[in-house]
Amino acid sequence: MSANNPSPGYVVGVDFGTLSGRAVVVRVADGAELGAAVHEYSHGVMDSALAASGTSLPPDWALQDPEDYLDVLRHAVPAAVSDAGIDPALVVGVGTDFTACTVLPVLADGTPLCEFLELRDRPHAYPKLWKHHASQPQADRITELALSRGEPWLARYGGKISSEWQFAKALQVLDEAPDIYRLADRWIEAADWIIWQLTGTETRNACTAGYKGIWQDGRYPSESFLAALDPGFARFAVDKLEHPISALGDLAGSLTPRAASWTGLPAGIAVAVGNVDAHVTPPAANAIAPGQMVAIMGTSTCHVMNSAALAEVPGMCGVVDGGILAGSWGYEAGQSAVGDIFAWFTDHLVPPEYHAAERRDGVTVHELLTAEAAAQPAGAHGLIALDWLNGNRSVLVDHHLSGAIVGLTLGTRAPEVYRALLEATAFGTRVIIDAFETAGLPVSELIIGGGLTRNQLLMQIYADVTRRPLSLVASEQAPALGSAIHAAVAAGAYPDVPAAAAAMGKMHAGAFKPNPHSADVYDQLYAEYVLLHDYFGRGMSEVMHRLRALRNRTREGAAARTVAGEGS
Amino acid sequence: MSANNPSPGYVVGVDFGTLSGRAVVVRVADGAELGAAVHEYSHGVMDSALAASGTSLPPDWALQDPEDYLDVLRHAVPAAVSDAGIDPALVVGVGTDFTACTVLPVLADGTPLCEFLELRDRPHAYPKLWKHHASQPQADRITELALSRGEPWLARYGGKISSEWQFAKALQVLDEAPDIYRLADRWIEAADWIIWQLTGTETRNACTAGYKGIWQDGRYPSESFLAALDPGFARFAVDKLEHPISALGDLAGSLTPRAASWTGLPAGIAVAVGNVDAHVTPPAANAIAPGQMVAIMGTSTCHVMNSAALAEVPGMCGVVDGGILAGSWGYEAGQSAVGDIFAWFTDHLVPPEYHAAERRDGVTVHELLTAEAAAQPAGAHGLIALDWLNGNRSVLVDHHLSGAIVGLTLGTRAPEVYRALLEATAFGTRVIIDAFETAGLPVSELIIGGGLTRNQLLMQIYADVTRRPLSLVASEQAPALGSAIHAAVAAGAYPDVPAAAAAMGKMHAGAFKPNPHSADVYDQLYAEYVLLHDYFGRGMSEVMHRLRALRNRTREGAAARTVAGEGS
Repeated sequence: MSANNPSPGYVVGVDFGTLSGRAVVVRVADGAELGAAVHEYSHGVMDSALAASGTSLPPDWALQDPEDYLDVLRHAVPAAVSDAGIDPALVVGVGTDFTACTVLPVLADGTPLCEFLELRDRPHAYPKLWKHHASQPQADRITELALSRGEPWLARYGGKISSEWQFAKALQVLDEAPDIYRLADRWIEAADWIIWQLTGTETRNACTAGYKGIWQDGRYPSESFLAALDPGFARFAVDKLEHPISALGDLAGSLTPRAASWTGLPAGIAVAVGNVDAHVTPPAANAIAPGQMVAIMGTSTCHVMNSAALAEVPGMCGVVDGGILAGSWGYEAGQSAVGDIFAWFTDHLVPPEYHAAERRDGVTVHELLTAEAAAQPAGAHGLIALDWLNGNRSVLVDHHLSGAIVGLTLGTRAPEVYRALLEATAFGTRVIIDAFETAGLPVSELIIGGGLTRNQLLMQIYADVTRRPLSLVASEQAPALGSAIHAAVAAGAYPDVPAAAAAMGKMHAGAFKPNPHSADVYDQLYAEYVLLHDYFGRGMSEVMHRLRALRNRTREGAAARTVAGEGS
Repeated sequence: MSANNPSPGYVVGVDFGTLSGRAVVVRVADGAELGAAVHEYSHGVMDSALAASGTSLPPDWALQDPEDYLDVLRHAVPAAVSDAGIDPALVVGVGTDFTACTVLPVLADGTPLCEFLELRDRPHAYPKLWKHHASQPQADRITELALSRGEPWLARYGGKISSEWQFAKALQVLDEAPDIYRLADRWIEAADWIIWQLTGTETRNACTAGYKGIWQDGRYPSESFLAALDPGFARFAVDKLEHPISALGDLAGSLTPRAASWTGLPAGIAVAVGNVDAHVTPPAANAIAPGQMVAIMGTSTCHVMNSAALAEVPGMCGVVDGGILAGSWGYEAGQSAVGDIFAWFTDHLVPPEYHAAERRDGVTVHELLTAEAAAQPAGAHGLIALDWLNGNRSVLVDHHLSGAIVGLTLGTRAPEVYRALLEATAFGTRVIIDAFETAGLPVSELIIGGGLTRNQLLMQIYADVTRRPLSLVASEQAPALGSAIHAAVAAGAYPDVPAAAAAMGKMHAGAFKPNPHSADVYDQLYAEYVLLHDYFGRGMSEVMHRLRALRNRTREGAAARTVAGEGS
């Protein structure tokens, strides 16, 4: 290779999101993104009924149809290659990332159970999307038992096992549909299932195994632990999960002729092992050093960071050896709702004049609220909000918390509430940073990716609130770029992910710097946030839990009376 | 008098409100309201600048022009008589009620200082409207000194003297405009000043003297107390207030020829002593017995109740001998914002679809939100709000508190927040009832008057939250009717106010009855309200005070920077 053309060829990264999949064609030499295409899932998220049968789903369910994932390979990948205008023969590798934990029951050959006609009307036969939360009782059982038995792995998850993860979701299947549970030869992350479809062989990646599958120190929870949950669950890990774990960036296999026919890519090229959208982003930004916390901010926020040290951060989502980068401990934390909160407010609590401007001048409601909010100095609205409108993922790990706004007066206006909500999410991130630092993991720099980076006021607030320089992931499709970087490593174009990230990853370093005056004001507001955070979130007041329980009881009571013909 | 026509003739009641005055013509025999007219004050509320000179006013100021009050006599009274279609010669008396404490500096002959050309640009020469709150530092000084000296009258005001009252407002004049203070021969409630204009002689009524003038047990605060506030204030009460106090319903004097020329009423007819809008309402509803709490619900709420017993209710506005009814102890409490909160929400935080229905179908935003809120059972929104968006008048007596909403989720919608705000004001009323009952004053029935009685959901919520039958004042213009009742007594048509109220007052008894199921749910929500009320309001958390102080500092800082040319 010459210096000008060190790594010839192209790689394709495919990012499987909640509603669509996106493929990007990337030049191996420098990470240039040459073409992209999106394919929307035709079934979207099934959260009220099964598309195939109309079977209705209870609250908190969220399913998908795996055929939608294959359609992304069939449509988005060829479209991206066409968009790039390159010869597909020059593509040397494919990498993917997925939402997680999105997990499904399959036969020993990888066939999803939901593909069988006789199971099309059985909800438990389908992939459970990451935000399927109906396994909360099972998650609670797992956490309680692990706590009572002193299971050493519990601390690796901040002390709580999530309803979103593999074990809780599988235990729900066993509880509610034991025949489906028995039919499932394997229980596999969609992140690994898609690789199976591309290569024809099962692999399991270190990231989802660790963060979602409780795989720690080379093993899953013990048979005796699982038997104590349910005797029928004893061999769950041995029978349905156990498989050698592959490091991120490893070669999973080569593209099968069938997958080549879907994608239009050459058969036999390298396919990287599966990965997760958030965890694949640090390489895309070349932000993989300890102290570089990458926050992917969209509807929710995921925070990931590497460290050479193992530490137990209370309330983190997890710490996994090689979970982000082989050879490092990968830490993950998160906020359950961020952009979702801003969208909720603009959709449901903003008066007509802001919407009129959108129709008249094409200025979005978000832009108008942001502009008015930006015109006020920090602290001028007199408000503090708690950003728990979809619960708290870190550090409280409590999905039954709720949001609050304090300081309202008759003079309070929508842009002020909007700003208070932006700030609340920044305070939530600062709580996470504080938890990391208290646990001995310094956070020196924040690197932000995701759609919310477009809001400059929000970015400045994060810099001010955290008193840290804010860098921005330079790619608009960072996860797909990260997947392409892993594809380049799997294809042998670079010796490892750090080398590939150095060549192909990009960030705008120090794009926002803390304003000392605002930061001083935010120190005061943050102190108030922490007081309310601890009051409502750490058991000093159980009011949020009681309000939610009362809400659920009265809604159930009203529904029961309606069914019984008594009216509401 | 025959049984069919026991009291021939008519009386006129005039209600002086914040923005307008309303006159009603009432038949003495049975209280029938035969005609009415409203006159808007041409100067309204001057809260940013003086109309005459453009002189700008600081925050928290609120002034009026007394000429507006006379215009009500000139326009509304003749128009009401005309509307009634009666012969004005048959009118036997006039009664009035006023906002309070609305107070002004006058010469010994009653001429307002603001009428002098050379004082037209001096804000302190004008009447200070009840909601002028710029005397807070003076109020704090009065309270602190009274507390340190153990003044016995302090407990009669729940332990705090309000910035709205006569002494605080007068002390502000002395502090800020000592020449105006010296020029003022008398410092008089507008409620008494208007009687002076009607009769040509000064009177002072027991209601405002007691509730607003710290007149207790036959005397004002002592000269030594006032001297300790400021040596120049020592003779304030003796020089500027002292005057025999008249009982409510007493004859103040007879209508002067000049006032007869304004009103078109016969000169020489009876004029009742002055009164206050809220305190004149119980007779209008014939709800003057102990245990009958009358709540006048509009932009704010005022609660009044009579009792034979003297008790000290923590945080009440005041208890005054004969303050509502001669011979009874009159109790007053209040909520600083009620309808103002609902208006704030609909004006500033309700999305376009609700406003579109208003334009399309003529259904108001309030009606639409109410209808949707009413479709949900109590407790189903999972929210609790604190109704302190304009501070808390009772029982915390803290205007620097603010509002809060707890329990928000991504599923929360505007009608749910609206309902939570309705409920919050009901919980605030229940706190007041609980304080009365704890102090030994049973509250057996709630009688509601004012504009908010039109909202049936709100009324049902109050019945459910308080677990009490709710009666409604039957008159749409209850204060004016109450004033007319006092006019009838002053004219000698009835021996006393109870006799006149029995004949002329009206209520819809038991219009709303508590729903036991909803009341059970509200007991649970009220328990949460009380927890938050005490947490934020009783010093356990000073977060609201700190947020407000920070808000004020940052706004002042931004204003200072703007003035200094640094931009905001």
